[in-house]
Amino acid sequence: MSTVTSVDLNADMGESFGPWVMGQDAALLEVVSSANIACGFHAGDPDVMAQTMATAHARGVGIGAHPGFADLQGFGRRRMHLPEASLRNMVQYQLGAALAMARAQGAQVRHLKLHGALANMAAEDEGMARACYGAALEIAPEIIVMVLAATAQQRAVEGLDCLWAGEIFADRAYNADATLVDRSLPGAVIHDAGYAAERIVKMVQAGAILPESGAPIPAAVDTICLHGDGATALQIARAVRGGLETAGIAVRAFEGRRGALA
Amino acid sequence: MSTVTSVDLNADMGESFGPWVMGQDAALLEVVSSANIACGFHAGDPDVMAQTMATAHARGVGIGAHPGFADLQGFGRRRMHLPEASLRNMVQYQLGAALAMARAQGAQVRHLKLHGALANMAAEDEGMARACYGAALEIAPEIIVMVLAATAQQRAVEGLDCLWAGEIFADRAYNADATLVDRSLPGAVIHDAGYAAERIVKMVQAGAILPESGAPIPAAVDTICLHGDGATALQIARAVRGGLETAGIAVRAFEGRRGALA
Amino acid sequence: MSTVTSVDLNADMGESFGPWVMGQDAALLEVVSSANIACGFHAGDPDVMAQTMATAHARGVGIGAHPGFADLQGFGRRRMHLPEASLRNMVQYQLGAALAMARAQGAQVRHLKLHGALANMAAEDEGMARACYGAALEIAPEIIVMVLAATAQQRAVEGLDCLWAGEIFADRAYNADATLVDRSLPGAVIHDAGYAAERIVKMVQAGAILPESGAPIPAAVDTICLHGDGATALQIARAVRGGLETAGIAVRAFEGRRGALA
Amino acid sequence: MSTVTSVDLNADMGESFGPWVMGQDAALLEVVSSANIACGFHAGDPDVMAQTMATAHARGVGIGAHPGFADLQGFGRRRMHLPEASLRNMVQYQLGAALAMARAQGAQVRHLKLHGALANMAAEDEGMARACYGAALEIAPEIIVMVLAATAQQRAVEGLDCLWAGEIFADRAYNADATLVDRSLPGAVIHDAGYAAERIVKMVQAGAILPESGAPIPAAVDTICLHGDGATALQIARAVRGGLETAGIAVRAFEGRRGALA
Repeated sequence: MSTVTSVDLNADMGESFGPWVMGQDAALLEVVSSANIACGFHAGDPDVMAQTMATAHARGVGIGAHPGFADLQGFGRRRMHLPEASLRNMVQYQLGAALAMARAQGAQVRHLKLHGALANMAAEDEGMARACYGAALEIAPEIIVMVLAATAQQRAVEGLDCLWAGEIFADRAYNADATLVDRSLPGAVIHDAGYAAERIVKMVQAGAILPESGAPIPAAVDTICLHGDGATALQIARAVRGGLETAGIAVRAFEGRRGALA
Repeated sequence: MSTVTSVDLNADMGESFGPWVMGQDAALLEVVSSANIACGFHAGDPDVMAQTMATAHARGVGIGAHPGFADLQGFGRRRMHLPEASLRNMVQYQLGAALAMARAQGAQVRHLKLHGALANMAAEDEGMARACYGAALEIAPEIIVMVLAATAQQRAVEGLDCLWAGEIFADRAYNADATLVDRSLPGAVIHDAGYAAERIVKMVQAGAILPESGAPIPAAVDTICLHGDGATALQIARAVRGGLETAGIAVRAFEGRRGALA
Repeated sequence: MSTVTSVDLNADMGESFGPWVMGQDAALLEVVSSANIACGFHAGDPDVMAQTMATAHARGVGIGAHPGFADLQGFGRRRMHLPEASLRNMVQYQLGAALAMARAQGAQVRHLKLHGALANMAAEDEGMARACYGAALEIAPEIIVMVLAATAQQRAVEGLDCLWAGEIFADRAYNADATLVDRSLPGAVIHDAGYAAERIVKMVQAGAILPESGAPIPAAVDTICLHGDGATALQIARAVRGGLETAGIAVRAFEGRRGALA
Repeated sequence: MSTVTSVDLNADMGESFGPWVMGQDAALLEVVSSANIACGFHAGDPDVMAQTMATAHARGVGIGAHPGFADLQGFGRRRMHLPEASLRNMVQYQLGAALAMARAQGAQVRHLKLHGALANMAAEDEGMARACYGAALEIAPEIIVMVLAATAQQRAVEGLDCLWAGEIFADRAYNADATLVDRSLPGAVIHDAGYAAERIVKMVQAGAILPESGAPIPAAVDTICLHGDGATALQIARAVRGGLETAGIAVRAFEGRRGALA
């Protein structure tokens, strides 16, 4: 039996830019407990950041800095190969901007999550993850680093003396080795809200990733990544939250853990 | 007789971008006591910022955030009319980035100076100056605001409860009302290093702007703005420093003053 | 009685950028006969341009280049003061890109319309309008210049030896001097689709702008500007087209006129 | 004995951006017969393009469009993985802009050369090279495609029905398989102007790449790539031109060849 009493729900937000609106931030803010807010390099601009942070803060949702590659047109989804020093500077610049803008809203940045290609590359490359996280911690030692559970991102934070939280996806199927099922395969992306909710409740209760086939993989299931684009995504988000609450699991911002996963 | 024993020298720096080099930062850092470092919107990028801050810090030069309009191609010299909230967000974003990057170099941001068209507009519009400075002080209350002496910038800081420093130009002639002589007029820009030095020494000793014709204008002569582009500029910079030191006036970062100019 | 048998309907399109979608291009392409396609400086990117042009061409809608200031975040709506040579280069660059991309779709650019703040400034400043249009005509002499009727834009094309088409707004009230009623005044923007349609039919038949009060102003009513953002805009667009067709006025791309308005 | 009577010299130009100056275009324009002019995505802006094209045209230097990835900060030197359609649109957009701006200067674009990471990737990937060149030829069928000799770029043009010219480097040593000696190895980059000149004359006369060790590799030695950054580069450029002229080989823009290398 699970003794888990709470879990965090997170979603990317503040991804509008200038005149262009993206996402359903207002609706998502009623569901999540943590918001990953774009920092102006792949999406967001100072006005969007300020407004998104103010709204998240007003709703009691934890604010996260969500840095990405400087690539607006590609939305930070195109891989770029940068020297480690440039990676560090890029993360510090964006996190610094986020820290200040949160402070101006009377709030604070609680967590950091890498975006897009930067996140994908760091999930494969522990050294790159450590460079990004180490840079962030240098300027905000108390920040909680959100990592993709059971990836190189997690291995990186386990070796750093920092608070971290593990993340799993609400709408993606897992392989037996904890990697995501390739998007080109059937069932890779979950569209059924009820099934998504049921599955997430089980994973949270088990403290494990439950692959489509194969044994449970013990994992740091501290937060569930929800998406905000499309009606289905919002349905799934609401169903997941509803399912968790029905199961007696409160949705609450993570406090962070430290060190290697037991 | 003057009892002034020190004054600050400042120059804009960190204005390179990506592969493009601008300025003679290394040479200037041997002359100035304060460096105004671009924050990535009109010039500079995270790598340039990091390196410029590290070098300035190593040389004991005070680090300033130098925010400008988001206009790389126009170098922040084109006037843009933004809502006050956008101005505030724009300043907070850039200052926040600078605070973080300075911290990562083991340094700190001591002062703030507006750049280019943003500075020119704020020198004419006290409300705009107050919006920019107020936004900065919200996130860094201890920062020293560098203002163009005897302009709306100065009136703005006099009304804010903050530390500030007044600035005059080493190479620009002044009108009797403390405005700059229009660049199109003869003598508006001073190219003679010896004359520039002699004139600045007098202004520092007098605690006043000395216009080409007309009476001295008592002013907060806390820092002298030097330029870094061109061999002449560097000559003037060195001559001004030499002249001050010969006159027994040390070059030292300002401590800031508070309230209205006596 | 009017002998007008056709008029053009135009709308701005291709204003998406990277991952951000803007407008209802597909729906509008069923209504208009001319599409003003953003050229990548204030909106649009090469992929969006290519796709928008291909779709417009497939539907027989005339393709227009719609250059604006290089200001993505501000969507080209912030006034920028550029030297005339820079204005010319900016227009030629964007038009050249549009010419090539249209050619690659097997289509061609038929007209040019200035966007946003660039258009507003050129509507007030005949010299600026002439600079922009002259630059465009240098590289595409056969292009039809779309101008805001009864503004400095029109005076500019009257003095150039070029084809042009006059434009009025479907949803904006006019003053007695042919300027637009200020947006802050009641009735400035028309939201009633039926009224908008009825009014436009009258203006097209009269060959005149019909101000809210005052006499008809003979004008080059060659094309009607429709908007695409919001359900109301699309309703108005459809109502205007329906009203025109009911009145026996076909919707057809303009052929352009030459010289001063008779 | 060689019967070669002329060869082309080319260099990248127009790489300034806004306030940032790069390169020694004026000096290089006295040496080269072809100028590869940046198109605004990785360097250059409409003003820089216009001025560079006007100057090149006035000196009788052939104008080339030099498109690159949309990455100013990285100067187009960072690899980006784009879908083929995006590559095509990106090339057409930039080439179109260049065609128009050349026309506005009373000149024309004679050739196309890919820049930076885009060029490097196309030198390894024939399909990518073909996509880029095919897109360019769609809108400018008469353009001469400049390719890195003996690479996938060359294989691409050999299969397209287009004019092309093969390029070798003045200052880079070659391996026996016609690839460049890795920059990390001694002798990879040639700094001795006299040696560079002597070597290039031999290669032009031989119609072959002469590797450091190994047999001559017959190649389309139609143009020599010169660099413009640094005093050494300019020395080499002048020495190469001098050496060629002394050997009775005129420096003249290429006319292009068609089909497979004999």
